Amino acid sequence: MKSARLPSWREGETRESLLAFLDAVEDVAPADRVVIFDNDGTLWCEKPTYPQVHFFVSELERAVATRPDLAERSEYRALLDEDRAALAAMGIGRVALALVELFEGISPEAFTGRVERFFADEVHPARGVAYRDLLYIPMLELIDELRARHFSVFIGTAGGADFVRAISMKLYGIPPERVVGSKVIYEVDRVDGRLGLIRTARLDGDPNEGPAKLPGIQRQIGRRPILAAGNSPGDAEMIEYTSTGDGPTLGLLVNHDDAEREYAYTSEAGTFDAAEPILDTAHRLGWTVASMRDDWLTVFGDAT
Amino acid sequence: MKSARLPSWREGETRESLLAFLDAVEDVAPADRVVIFDNDGTLWCEKPTYPQVHFFVSELERAVATRPDLAERSEYRALLDEDRAALAAMGIGRVALALVELFEGISPEAFTGRVERFFADEVHPARGVAYRDLLYIPMLELIDELRARHFSVFIGTAGGADFVRAISMKLYGIPPERVVGSKVIYEVDRVDGRLGLIRTARLDGDPNEGPAKLPGIQRQIGRRPILAAGNSPGDAEMIEYTSTGDGPTLGLLVNHDDAEREYAYTSEAGTFDAAEPILDTAHRLGWTVASMRDDWLTVFGDAT
Repeated sequence: MKSARLPSWREGETRESLLAFLDAVEDVAPADRVVIFDNDGTLWCEKPTYPQVHFFVSELERAVATRPDLAERSEYRALLDEDRAALAAMGIGRVALALVELFEGISPEAFTGRVERFFADEVHPARGVAYRDLLYIPMLELIDELRARHFSVFIGTAGGADFVRAISMKLYGIPPERVVGSKVIYEVDRVDGRLGLIRTARLDGDPNEGPAKLPGIQRQIGRRPILAAGNSPGDAEMIEYTSTGDGPTLGLLVNHDDAEREYAYTSEAGTFDAAEPILDTAHRLGWTVASMRDDWLTVFGDAT
Repeated sequence: MKSARLPSWREGETRESLLAFLDAVEDVAPADRVVIFDNDGTLWCEKPTYPQVHFFVSELERAVATRPDLAERSEYRALLDEDRAALAAMGIGRVALALVELFEGISPEAFTGRVERFFADEVHPARGVAYRDLLYIPMLELIDELRARHFSVFIGTAGGADFVRAISMKLYGIPPERVVGSKVIYEVDRVDGRLGLIRTARLDGDPNEGPAKLPGIQRQIGRRPILAAGNSPGDAEMIEYTSTGDGPTLGLLVNHDDAEREYAYTSEAGTFDAAEPILDTAHRLGWTVASMRDDWLTVFGDAT
């Protein structure tokens, strides 16, 4: 039955490393079998733009349709004009905060509804297929193998927790409480006499990126994972924290070196300045590197 | 088989209300079957003192053994002397913050180890039995029934998340990520070259009590529960929020009216001023009230 494991991973060192880890966890108590995956660029395609940015722009266009004055705001103007120079000058952090204001005052349920609508309606801008078909099949196979070994599978994303939670169950079978992400502050309010929550435009702590992913893990999961996977400098601390824990551990880096089937790029985190290219960090710390080009027999399966 | 359900709940309105809810959730999608239980006074005995306060005092005594100067601090002095008047004058909030300082600079793993030691060594001060034998059997039966219906079972406590998470799996079968509680801020640090977290003595947001339990639920769980149980004014918003959601919902109040088998007292939250006695809130909002004296055939089972 061994050959049935990880069928989309090409024979070789990387696959052997994953299989060796899967065999080694037999000795780990099930309660300690915790794995965390970055999302953008690790489980789904993040190019040419983060799906969440696409969602934000789609929501901005809807908002501008009824409130044209919004288009005059500099961050929104740059987005609507796809003015990359202006966006780069402002930085994704400032732009993201401006976009978060679009949802000020709505309930979490209403926000979830908008995300669901986005994923039902929109397709990847360059590929013309639904986002749900742009998940990396080899990574989904790894998740399945981990689940079969009673792992608790978490997502640790710099993206919005509420954004990813709205579709994590549908896309990955991962329930909302297993998504660690960037958060906004909620306020308690009564609407029509009914007690509820409304979104503010203020961030709840730091964005969940770089070193901030560690306290994010502690807050949400309460223990150190034994496997972490990522693709950018914003994942470096999460992977190092995980792969230097006790017992069998694995740090896994997805290397985007496949210009033909996906994209070839050096991963840089959105708002996070790293001193070292992530591939160098991976080699220095002995992580397993998954070459998209060499280690994956397929990227998206038959869907694209 | 019906008679096998909730065997420690006496026949009557309360039990019927719980069974009616259990029957009604057949129509609820499993992903929405979320329940949250307060811990102190709802799942375990909180009198004569919160187990966490007992833990803190036990840790304080250990610390004073090597650093006698600590005993001069007014909050610690009052605790060591069991000076109830001084403690009441300072307020539990101030005292708790002072106690949190005892753990400044240690890792989450070290903190968990201390909690585990406490539960292995200490017994309830008045009853002389282990704390693990002071769980309410009827509530554990309710948890079992909910689990059999594929509910995700959470704890929402004003106590420390890390404290409860250290023993939630062992006591209740609830993993750490399903515990929502008060939190401290962690800092990222390297110890002997290994990346890790260390506790600060600063709280991460508001204590998880009263209205703060609602954003606490959103942060950790990401959706509104359909059943909430509590016993004090600090649980009022959590129960109201839950019991006014869509579809079948249930708000459950544990009423401590059993001086013989447990304690008879009007529940008051630790740091939280409520305008209305919680029993009045329960009647006003139509929650199910579990009378410990009348509805429970046993409280702690045979253990005590």
